[in-house]
Amino acid sequence: MTTFTLARRAERMNPSVIREILKVTEKPGIISFAGGLPSPKTFPIAAFAEACAQVLANEGEAALQYAASEGFPALREWVAAELGRQSAEAGVPWAVDPAQVLITTGSQQGLDLVAKVLIDTGSKVMVEQPTYLGALQAFTPMEPQFVGVASDEEGVDIADWQAKASGARFFYVLPNYQNPTGRSMSEPRRVALIEAAKAANVPIIEDNPYGDLWFDAPPPAPLAARHPEGVVYLGSFSKTLAPGLRLGFLVAPKALYPKLLQAKQAADLHTPSFNQRIVARVLQGDFMARHVPTIRALYKSQCEAMLAALERELSGTGITWNKPAGGMFLWLKLPAHVDAVALLPKAVERNVAYVPGAAFFAEAPQKHTLRLSFVTASVAQINIGMAALAATLKEAIGL
Amino acid sequence: MTTFTLARRAERMNPSVIREILKVTEKPGIISFAGGLPSPKTFPIAAFAEACAQVLANEGEAALQYAASEGFPALREWVAAELGRQSAEAGVPWAVDPAQVLITTGSQQGLDLVAKVLIDTGSKVMVEQPTYLGALQAFTPMEPQFVGVASDEEGVDIADWQAKASGARFFYVLPNYQNPTGRSMSEPRRVALIEAAKAANVPIIEDNPYGDLWFDAPPPAPLAARHPEGVVYLGSFSKTLAPGLRLGFLVAPKALYPKLLQAKQAADLHTPSFNQRIVARVLQGDFMARHVPTIRALYKSQCEAMLAALERELSGTGITWNKPAGGMFLWLKLPAHVDAVALLPKAVERNVAYVPGAAFFAEAPQKHTLRLSFVTASVAQINIGMAALAATLKEAIGL
Repeated sequence: MTTFTLARRAERMNPSVIREILKVTEKPGIISFAGGLPSPKTFPIAAFAEACAQVLANEGEAALQYAASEGFPALREWVAAELGRQSAEAGVPWAVDPAQVLITTGSQQGLDLVAKVLIDTGSKVMVEQPTYLGALQAFTPMEPQFVGVASDEEGVDIADWQAKASGARFFYVLPNYQNPTGRSMSEPRRVALIEAAKAANVPIIEDNPYGDLWFDAPPPAPLAARHPEGVVYLGSFSKTLAPGLRLGFLVAPKALYPKLLQAKQAADLHTPSFNQRIVARVLQGDFMARHVPTIRALYKSQCEAMLAALERELSGTGITWNKPAGGMFLWLKLPAHVDAVALLPKAVERNVAYVPGAAFFAEAPQKHTLRLSFVTASVAQINIGMAALAATLKEAIGL
Repeated sequence: MTTFTLARRAERMNPSVIREILKVTEKPGIISFAGGLPSPKTFPIAAFAEACAQVLANEGEAALQYAASEGFPALREWVAAELGRQSAEAGVPWAVDPAQVLITTGSQQGLDLVAKVLIDTGSKVMVEQPTYLGALQAFTPMEPQFVGVASDEEGVDIADWQAKASGARFFYVLPNYQNPTGRSMSEPRRVALIEAAKAANVPIIEDNPYGDLWFDAPPPAPLAARHPEGVVYLGSFSKTLAPGLRLGFLVAPKALYPKLLQAKQAADLHTPSFNQRIVARVLQGDFMARHVPTIRALYKSQCEAMLAALERELSGTGITWNKPAGGMFLWLKLPAHVDAVALLPKAVERNVAYVPGAAFFAEAPQKHTLRLSFVTASVAQINIGMAALAATLKEAIGL
């Protein structure tokens, strides 16, 4: 009998809490507000079909061959130009060189590369409270010490950040329509955070998978545009095109780029060249200018339906929620004595599911919180599901 | 000015030696025996085009959505069945449960996952001398101590292996048509290695990207079939279908599988579902039974051309080489005083390139060795390039 001796880091790795929790929600007919799955109605299937045919007909051998670890040049150029355009429109010019762009196998891989290059055992890593669970999972194998920073409706609490920043390897933050809360960082808070980061000499990892999903107006300019030498920016095509292609990217300061590239090469040699060329072809012309607004409109209508249902069903109950300006999620706070983990099976009995908020905290979980996604379910499903959820919550708080 | 403090492991990560070396070979018109690029003539472009169209037409929403970290069920089932079939035909039945199969983003990712789960700082990791450079790159960030094991024409030297095995976390080995040497492990040596591994309680990581590329007869049964509880098996579709899809897999003992799965989820959530479904569709019916023999025949003819050129140009010079029974590579030994790294620019002057062997050694590099790939260049190019290479080598040894 051969036994495998596990690395110490493997002992820290645990099954995704969400994954385990969501097993109880795998029930036919359930209306799920739990997953972070983009609506498949938004996937541009016809455009992909045309691009696949063209790529295979015109550049099939190159698309199916090994390729450079940095990524497909045309895709890197598109990312650099698009980020420059968006930042300029938001009032903070950012000159992104395509040489700073690294194509990743989803932006999740960007988190893995950052962890490998920047985290030693015991390194202090600052995160928002709450934060994206997948980032905690990507960082954990490198054995950091997480320090959670408080935040409010405008974003991270600068005083708390300053009090905790000394010696941190980096601060990980989602400024736009954050997962899990749906909150965004205000313009003044971004300015203050960058000032504080420069003063404390703490780099920032800026994760922006949801920034294009704004409802009425684009978000303020990215943190990276304000401090290009001190920020690694992560982006994704999962929310604007489709997650099943696993295409993301990072933009790194030139001094750091070579190490991230070496980590990338060791991790999977390169992101599928076929997928990169398909997307580069889909992006030609003004496809995104026509396509992304349809996603925004759909998600805005579904978010409004969910907010209207919350207002209708739960106003005056002491339960509170935020009004996202974009993205995929909103965040509920129940009365402090109600445990959203314990309540989930009761919601599932009524055919509705959510994610308990506790999973998103690196420390001191707030058990009375929960995350709702408004992107996967239709407006009709949202109305039915929210009635069931409201009944569950009202019963739990004795109303 | 914000400075990034690098993790200690990042200091160990270096640009791929091969990558740097090969920069000198980027010259128009050069005949390169350096790269490990499968011949693009073998890519089944028409089959992919049909599969893409069908997948997008019939299962487009699922193919473009997030998916399970384990991989697409039909693909996992194909892998399990195919490995079982091949092992039975080789005389060692192996019952692979699809639940043991994890689809990876190329088999390179399998190496990254193994490293994360099994290597602590300072862990002893045994490798062949020489071995696959990409494995050294994937393991290095987890800071192992590499121990090289001697090998001969039949594979790893069992006495040397036994002398070095105590306390090793695992032994990494490519039994079939090894990269870089092209050598294969004999049946008796496989039996002896498994006995030794069981006795020493040392797990084996068996990497088999080339096993399907046999010329006249399939290789002996895999090590994993002989000791399923003590071996992690890595495989790939890069050499039999196309590398640009980045599709590989691993088969792990059930006790180890959950940790590898957690590492996979943290690394990139899942391998592109689109790519998995395309390949699953291509694999339907007897496609591989028709397709893979055409690759074998092509590579065999090119290998024979290279061996004939070696015989014609270099017999009697003291330079020696092996005769591969499959795969993509063969291995030259120059007289001991000739440095293949120093010689490369002279070969490039004559419009031919190879990879110096030194890069493939975890310790004590043999500088008088070099690797030749016979898969990318045509027979006509092989004849021209080998004449140029022979002229370079003969000049270096004073003939």
